Amino acid sequence: MAKQPDQKPDFSKSPDGLIPAVAQCAETNKILMLAYVNKDAWLETLKSGRACYWSRSRSKLWKKGEESGNWQEIVEILVDCDADAIIYKIKQVGGIACHTGRQSCFFHKYEGNDFKIISDPIKNPEDLYRSK
Amino acid sequence: MAKQPDQKPDFSKSPDGLIPAVAQCAETNKILMLAYVNKDAWLETLKSGRACYWSRSRSKLWKKGEESGNWQEIVEILVDCDADAIIYKIKQVGGIACHTGRQSCFFHKYEGNDFKIISDPIKNPEDLYRSK
Repeated sequence: MAKQPDQKPDFSKSPDGLIPAVAQCAETNKILMLAYVNKDAWLETLKSGRACYWSRSRSKLWKKGEESGNWQEIVEILVDCDADAIIYKIKQVGGIACHTGRQSCFFHKYEGNDFKIISDPIKNPEDLYRSK
Repeated sequence: MAKQPDQKPDFSKSPDGLIPAVAQCAETNKILMLAYVNKDAWLETLKSGRACYWSRSRSKLWKKGEESGNWQEIVEILVDCDADAIIYKIKQVGGIACHTGRQSCFFHKYEGNDFKIISDPIKNPEDLYRSK
């Protein structure tokens, strides 16, 4: 396959230097979460082999799993045609990506002009951050 | 399942009123693209049953498929725990989501400290926008 060596994520495309990264289960293709990555988070991900994000609420690097033990082991990384969105195909350690204790953050389904919760927590969130 | 009627996307979370939406093939769970949605695009999507985005480059509503005929028929809509990211599970008419003529925009794979193109165009992009 052809190489395209200049396809690295272009963080300058966003005024705050952040671009979205989708964490997707490498086995089932289920989308587990969406968070943001800056250059430092990107480099840390490549170095560690674990998904790292930039926490917008805490304004710091967010090594996902650092508190809960639920690391996201990188299986594959994809970048889109415009170099401003990333997919982390991962193995989710512990099976839980969401801070609510669910497998996926996407558990609100639009239905009948309303939203319904379509999955239950696997673990109590309070226990989640004690279990590392 | 319990209802949570206030889980509608919170466009105020972003200074520009835009939140990311991931278009995912409803059948295979393959991620096809990521784009942005504002309140108008969201309402248009609900009304039409087809994915609508906000084009950041053209600063206008982007009814995906309007030029190419490759509409994205909505099968399911999911919103995340923070109400600031959306999944459109779709049926991609024509099988092509990317402006390069590929099924998915995510065709650059990080490998060996470089990027490789992992899929070829299904259709010539020049023909894509003549074929509606």
